[in-house]
Amino acid sequence: MAFATTVRVRYADTDAMGVVYHANYLVWFEVGRNELMRSWEMPYVQFEEKGILVPVVEANIHWRFPARYDDLLRVEACLAELSPAKLKFAYRIVRDSDGKLLCDGFTLHGFMSREVRPMALPKAAPDLYEALMKKIEPRG
Amino acid sequence: MAFATTVRVRYADTDAMGVVYHANYLVWFEVGRNELMRSWEMPYVQFEEKGILVPVVEANIHWRFPARYDDLLRVEACLAELSPAKLKFAYRIVRDSDGKLLCDGFTLHGFMSREVRPMALPKAAPDLYEALMKKIEPRG
Amino acid sequence: MAFATTVRVRYADTDAMGVVYHANYLVWFEVGRNELMRSWEMPYVQFEEKGILVPVVEANIHWRFPARYDDLLRVEACLAELSPAKLKFAYRIVRDSDGKLLCDGFTLHGFMSREVRPMALPKAAPDLYEALMKKIEPRG
Amino acid sequence: MAFATTVRVRYADTDAMGVVYHANYLVWFEVGRNELMRSWEMPYVQFEEKGILVPVVEANIHWRFPARYDDLLRVEACLAELSPAKLKFAYRIVRDSDGKLLCDGFTLHGFMSREVRPMALPKAAPDLYEALMKKIEPRG
Repeated sequence: MAFATTVRVRYADTDAMGVVYHANYLVWFEVGRNELMRSWEMPYVQFEEKGILVPVVEANIHWRFPARYDDLLRVEACLAELSPAKLKFAYRIVRDSDGKLLCDGFTLHGFMSREVRPMALPKAAPDLYEALMKKIEPRG
Repeated sequence: MAFATTVRVRYADTDAMGVVYHANYLVWFEVGRNELMRSWEMPYVQFEEKGILVPVVEANIHWRFPARYDDLLRVEACLAELSPAKLKFAYRIVRDSDGKLLCDGFTLHGFMSREVRPMALPKAAPDLYEALMKKIEPRG
Repeated sequence: MAFATTVRVRYADTDAMGVVYHANYLVWFEVGRNELMRSWEMPYVQFEEKGILVPVVEANIHWRFPARYDDLLRVEACLAELSPAKLKFAYRIVRDSDGKLLCDGFTLHGFMSREVRPMALPKAAPDLYEALMKKIEPRG
Repeated sequence: MAFATTVRVRYADTDAMGVVYHANYLVWFEVGRNELMRSWEMPYVQFEEKGILVPVVEANIHWRFPARYDDLLRVEACLAELSPAKLKFAYRIVRDSDGKLLCDGFTLHGFMSREVRPMALPKAAPDLYEALMKKIEPRG
């Protein structure tokens, strides 16, 4: 994937197995897509300012190898798919020191109004839809 | 304290020291005061429905002894102080199996409007203020 | 599913969209399988005491409808599949007041030694494997 | 304070009031002291490698003004006090855009063995005690 940001594992992220608690990878996926969108100069807050929420509707996650306290991780993210109603981000989380793959997965998001009703992005914000179309990186 | 509710320690709550991560006790304080208010038939949502937010403005916490995965904990909570602008809850978290004190502390809360401006509860909701006055348990 | 436990949505679980932050459903999946195993009188701690860790290796989650602060949720869980190396739990999270389905999904877990090496449960703990076999609920 | 690091507010950090959930500031205090110690070339992991745990035993926190989603925050941290048995960190969390103070507080930590017994740092690791002495910044 073309984009990456880093996170440092906090004590708060770990659990009594001595490794990172699995649900935290979903939070790092959020960090990844958020920083990816900022890198496009289309930060997620810009969607919300236009009244477009983009909640997660599905996720699939594979945990390959555990991360530990104080590890520096590289969160790779890309826009894998886009349709008028949905978009899909793919992620890879690797250990920065040696590039070992720890976790990968995707999240699928719907475009929703503030009343949490589905909306068609090309109608609601054609400029954003246009711009997103150019960011698709189909093979991750 | 007169009131107690229970929580079970989740893997998510623990950290790589093998014990509960310290910040989670603040979340259990929330559970304690929330269930305390429900037991009064004055659930916190009722405040919000009247446009009164009650955010935390100060906290003090002592961690005495660690809790571990799967421990059943008793969260004791009481209303320790009340003024027109603020209220203070006190807490004790003890291990249910043997009553050992694990953590105690207090949280201080301000009455705020939706615009996060301080408000005087006796003016905004005299009935709630009246009712809260009767719930003070000064010595915990 | 035959088994259910309940959780109350905490302020800590919500986010600025006014609903529950998606990653917290994974934590409630943990609560569900933990209480399911306790109901079998095979609590997860018993596995760890025998040196068997059961970390999550894959998850799939569908978020159908948002939960809100103070909602009471019913977490249904069942053992969907079992093999010598892995087990799979399925979950449904529904709003207790009206039974509305909010979230469903599964988690796949591997049997691992303390050194995080895969192990065969029938060899490591034939009694636990036997007992788990009887708990499979294939259609959820 | 002489040292600062930054954190970006995640959706995961916010709550249904539209602002950051209060307990997360304790996690950012952890980030602050962790990066402070790394800046000294005395990362916290180095303590653990010598068998010295440094758990939090007390905290006091004032929440002054709310942080919001996507805010960039500056976490200032310093070593405020040191004794053979304890050390105290002080913190200030300010909004990076305008320097507004959002939260301040301290955490008090004890030096403990792996068996969670108090220990005297000058005995257990005189070099670390010596080095820490030079880092005290009494007035924050």
